[in-house]
Amino acid sequence: MVGLAVLGCGRIGKLHARNVASHPRARLVKVFDVSSEAAAAVAGELGVQAAASVEEAIADPEVQGVLIASSTDTHVELIVAAVEAGKAVLCEKPIDLDLERAQACWRQIAPRRPRVMLGFNRRFDPSFRALAERLRSGEIGSPELLVITSRDPAPPPAQYLRRSGGLLRDMTIHDLDMARHLAGEIVEAHAAGANLVDPMIGALGDIDTCALTLRSRSGALVQITNSRHSAYGYDQRIEVFGARGMLLAGNQRQTSVELWSERHTAARDVVLHFFIERYRAAYAAEIDAFIAALESGAPMSPDFADGLAALELAQAAERSLATGQTVKLSAAR
Amino acid sequence: MVGLAVLGCGRIGKLHARNVASHPRARLVKVFDVSSEAAAAVAGELGVQAAASVEEAIADPEVQGVLIASSTDTHVELIVAAVEAGKAVLCEKPIDLDLERAQACWRQIAPRRPRVMLGFNRRFDPSFRALAERLRSGEIGSPELLVITSRDPAPPPAQYLRRSGGLLRDMTIHDLDMARHLAGEIVEAHAAGANLVDPMIGALGDIDTCALTLRSRSGALVQITNSRHSAYGYDQRIEVFGARGMLLAGNQRQTSVELWSERHTAARDVVLHFFIERYRAAYAAEIDAFIAALESGAPMSPDFADGLAALELAQAAERSLATGQTVKLSAAR
Amino acid sequence: MVGLAVLGCGRIGKLHARNVASHPRARLVKVFDVSSEAAAAVAGELGVQAAASVEEAIADPEVQGVLIASSTDTHVELIVAAVEAGKAVLCEKPIDLDLERAQACWRQIAPRRPRVMLGFNRRFDPSFRALAERLRSGEIGSPELLVITSRDPAPPPAQYLRRSGGLLRDMTIHDLDMARHLAGEIVEAHAAGANLVDPMIGALGDIDTCALTLRSRSGALVQITNSRHSAYGYDQRIEVFGARGMLLAGNQRQTSVELWSERHTAARDVVLHFFIERYRAAYAAEIDAFIAALESGAPMSPDFADGLAALELAQAAERSLATGQTVKLSAAR
Amino acid sequence: MVGLAVLGCGRIGKLHARNVASHPRARLVKVFDVSSEAAAAVAGELGVQAAASVEEAIADPEVQGVLIASSTDTHVELIVAAVEAGKAVLCEKPIDLDLERAQACWRQIAPRRPRVMLGFNRRFDPSFRALAERLRSGEIGSPELLVITSRDPAPPPAQYLRRSGGLLRDMTIHDLDMARHLAGEIVEAHAAGANLVDPMIGALGDIDTCALTLRSRSGALVQITNSRHSAYGYDQRIEVFGARGMLLAGNQRQTSVELWSERHTAARDVVLHFFIERYRAAYAAEIDAFIAALESGAPMSPDFADGLAALELAQAAERSLATGQTVKLSAAR
Repeated sequence: MVGLAVLGCGRIGKLHARNVASHPRARLVKVFDVSSEAAAAVAGELGVQAAASVEEAIADPEVQGVLIASSTDTHVELIVAAVEAGKAVLCEKPIDLDLERAQACWRQIAPRRPRVMLGFNRRFDPSFRALAERLRSGEIGSPELLVITSRDPAPPPAQYLRRSGGLLRDMTIHDLDMARHLAGEIVEAHAAGANLVDPMIGALGDIDTCALTLRSRSGALVQITNSRHSAYGYDQRIEVFGARGMLLAGNQRQTSVELWSERHTAARDVVLHFFIERYRAAYAAEIDAFIAALESGAPMSPDFADGLAALELAQAAERSLATGQTVKLSAAR
Repeated sequence: MVGLAVLGCGRIGKLHARNVASHPRARLVKVFDVSSEAAAAVAGELGVQAAASVEEAIADPEVQGVLIASSTDTHVELIVAAVEAGKAVLCEKPIDLDLERAQACWRQIAPRRPRVMLGFNRRFDPSFRALAERLRSGEIGSPELLVITSRDPAPPPAQYLRRSGGLLRDMTIHDLDMARHLAGEIVEAHAAGANLVDPMIGALGDIDTCALTLRSRSGALVQITNSRHSAYGYDQRIEVFGARGMLLAGNQRQTSVELWSERHTAARDVVLHFFIERYRAAYAAEIDAFIAALESGAPMSPDFADGLAALELAQAAERSLATGQTVKLSAAR
Repeated sequence: MVGLAVLGCGRIGKLHARNVASHPRARLVKVFDVSSEAAAAVAGELGVQAAASVEEAIADPEVQGVLIASSTDTHVELIVAAVEAGKAVLCEKPIDLDLERAQACWRQIAPRRPRVMLGFNRRFDPSFRALAERLRSGEIGSPELLVITSRDPAPPPAQYLRRSGGLLRDMTIHDLDMARHLAGEIVEAHAAGANLVDPMIGALGDIDTCALTLRSRSGALVQITNSRHSAYGYDQRIEVFGARGMLLAGNQRQTSVELWSERHTAARDVVLHFFIERYRAAYAAEIDAFIAALESGAPMSPDFADGLAALELAQAAERSLATGQTVKLSAAR
Repeated sequence: MVGLAVLGCGRIGKLHARNVASHPRARLVKVFDVSSEAAAAVAGELGVQAAASVEEAIADPEVQGVLIASSTDTHVELIVAAVEAGKAVLCEKPIDLDLERAQACWRQIAPRRPRVMLGFNRRFDPSFRALAERLRSGEIGSPELLVITSRDPAPPPAQYLRRSGGLLRDMTIHDLDMARHLAGEIVEAHAAGANLVDPMIGALGDIDTCALTLRSRSGALVQITNSRHSAYGYDQRIEVFGARGMLLAGNQRQTSVELWSERHTAARDVVLHFFIERYRAAYAAEIDAFIAALESGAPMSPDFADGLAALELAQAAERSLATGQTVKLSAAR
């Protein structure tokens, strides 16, 4: 049994804690949250101990891996603490809002050859995973055009947005990781943004609508559209067009029911509301992959470098937003 | 160029006349209708002559084939007249409401080895035709279960119903022909009917809802559901389940547009309203097949025997309705 | 916490045991199987006790409800034992292969006003449940035609078939329950069967392909097609056609991926393999409903009478198979 | 009856000629092609006169409108000739490969207030037309994101490509017009291109794969993907995402047949092969709109200014391809 601690008991932390608790080969040892009430609630529900401090949770000798689901500004500090304590880490994206800070974190921990996995949960979605595997198996030849659709059901509150790092680092970062995952390393990025959903978002200096074009080293072009709202639910689709065909992974719904009436035919349910519903299986598979890597010693994937690369891409896209120019990514990686 | 006459200028007669007029290898020579106004309208539109009588239309030496789209009670008489004049015939279904009268017609004309095609237009629907061809090519192995869905958008007026011969001879007959076409000769029939749509229909002694089960000589079982109404349009679907898979032919719509909203997703248009819209291409292909058979001398299909067989099946289904028993079809065919 | 015992540790018993073990408000107290190895395996996996006998499992004072998932011929005996011990029961279908024996069981236990739920798991499938609720809400008006498709992926071994009671009591019984659930009480049944899948099945005196027509008291007609094999997976669909439209509940797949190639477009995965995969959520919801009813004291549904009614329908369908006649159901219910 | 002449008897010219010939309110008066054989073939098929020269065709007093379907480099000259002869014009896109030449053409003919329609046939596709109308009716609120997919089945020969003006003026121009048609005037364009399909295309200095992002004056962002090949047929889709939902117009197929097998389920036909098949109804509707505008005197749409705007957009996209920069469109329009 692999012993794990969960830091942060918000929506995702709670989900992780439950997934660990019900995993056949893992044991949830400790949970922590800056709100001791939040921690106590999760601890009570799952019959585990709430730690009094992150230090206590990390230091527990039964804890082999630490799941970091606290607020973004604490990620770097907690990664460092966990790595220095010799623990493996599964950290929610992004590593940090600031690329340089994330890079510094890496320089600090790298000598320890840390085992850090990044929480790009969508890579573990059964449909996206099947699409990626079939793409790699050569089913449609080499990819030429990718179209990633990613639209949240409704904008978060201003309070969240203010500390979010902006649409590109907060929301698009998932799609940037997916682009790299499917098309390989990205060498160019262009972004066009707009404030169409809510003037409040514009007032915060942020955008709520975005259209990106990326180019991969292999030559494939990737397009992404983002919106902070979507009337019909959390719109999450991927299309990969290749030399010999196309693979699509579509939206998902609660039921398979269709209505045929005098107004419409074949009308389906709205799509699953948001990430908790849509990526339920993905989160469980992510935890499972983390545990399996912990057990086997195999490399963790996606790893810290993937987290840095996505952040670097988000930053490049921001530069493109500001200048209108296509931005080249550092050839170094 | 093949010269043709159209008898009957109602909805289907008009459609036939237009299809003949625009066919590259046919010439519409004459049209006739008991209403000389109706005939004149079609004749005017298409620039042809309205005949003063059926005799005139049939006798015209330029007429090689006669399309009979007049009321059902005139079919037998017109078939005989056309055949005796040495003309080929394309006759709308059914041959007659009365099986014995239809059989007598055949006995009368058979010695002339007549060339008669029956207007089972659905056999010529591009989707149903492709399904039939793929079934025959062995794509799903031998057929085991067939499910035919056939529902009209709205009941016809009482006046029509009174002379229609009842649901089974008027409407189901198309599905009975399709069952034979796809599953081969039918040896058993069972029918259960109901009056759920309009009490007027029950008052006429007819049913408006029907569920049939047939068994083919090859062993396949066929289910048919009929209704005289359908909120979402003319519902015309076929499913063939076989040893190695299933072929479906679905409904058709005016456009490919889908609506995704806060109420529904992927909501399509209602389906094509009725037979004129849904089977437009089928009617044109039927005329084309008739013309091609006239030119080549090849056997016509579906032929008079197919018309008799469908009528016999309708009659057997009526017997089953009345008795609740599965009715065996005469092994004679 | 509700204490439960599971009798029978085969495929479904194991599934029930796991669902109980992971239910937040239930405790799995004991498991039993005639194979003590099978019981020990489940007990070990879930950290519970394997009972040495059914008596021990039923008698345990912590056990409030008994889940009967043993072989069909033991159901009646175990129901009686559990009821006489004052326990609630969730029993897999069918109650017994013999209707009279099942009725006798009821007469024996009825005086105790037993709380017995029947394991018609499909009623709890999220899609079928949503369809049933939307039908009841009047979304498509009153139901007129129902089409139930139910085809297993592959025939069971001869050994299973020999004791199965035949296709109608073993497999169709689920569809018969669904027909009652959606259309209301059934008053007439007709069945046509065939042996098309495997001659071994015919040699056992059974059928492997079946087409049924039922009539409900409300007037709706229901058609069912069954097959013991299906190349593309476990085919489980329901169509309800009503006065104002149609509701469909379609098949389900592992992923949402589509392939577009030079051969096909929009090609989806095969459908979920069999009941364990397709009805995973349904089994969990069934257990949840049983626990909720145990807690609240509310009536259990589906109940013993539903089990009897389905069995009576299967028997009527068998009579129809044998005679070719539509069989009237006893008006008594 | 409206008298029309068709100049150019290639694939599209022939299609136009047939559509005119079968239009109930039009008469095909003359056809012309630089290959007198090509002209004679069409003239023979449709029973009309082949003109010996364009001058003869244009000058014919029975000719009220001229359809220009000759090679692109002749368009300007023929437009001028037809307009100066007082005839209305329906000209295939593009007006010319050179924007300045097209602008000069306009300056030359503008004083005559010419009636010129541009052949952006896709505006007349029944599905795209319905989508545009429903968008305008406000069904999904104001458009925020548009995704246009446009991929040809296979690259044209080098000989064609050499004179095509490049992917953006030859192929993308249709999508640029559609973007303007649906999202309104475009104010910014970005393009990223690649040569992935055939090295021959790169050797000609052209691209075969392209990803564009446009911004409309209203703020909507538009993404377009193009490819010169597509394994599954001519991929033509439009998605419009708006404040209250999404409208999609999908691909079209020859039949509605689906195959369910042990490999795939719900597998549909490949999509219609190319523009002749996919836009058959669109071409007919376009001719009908031209004839109706000729009869009524109503403004023609799309008009010469639409042709100029699309060409200007193609040119801006080329500048973006070359520089990597987002290009602003002249605010003048």
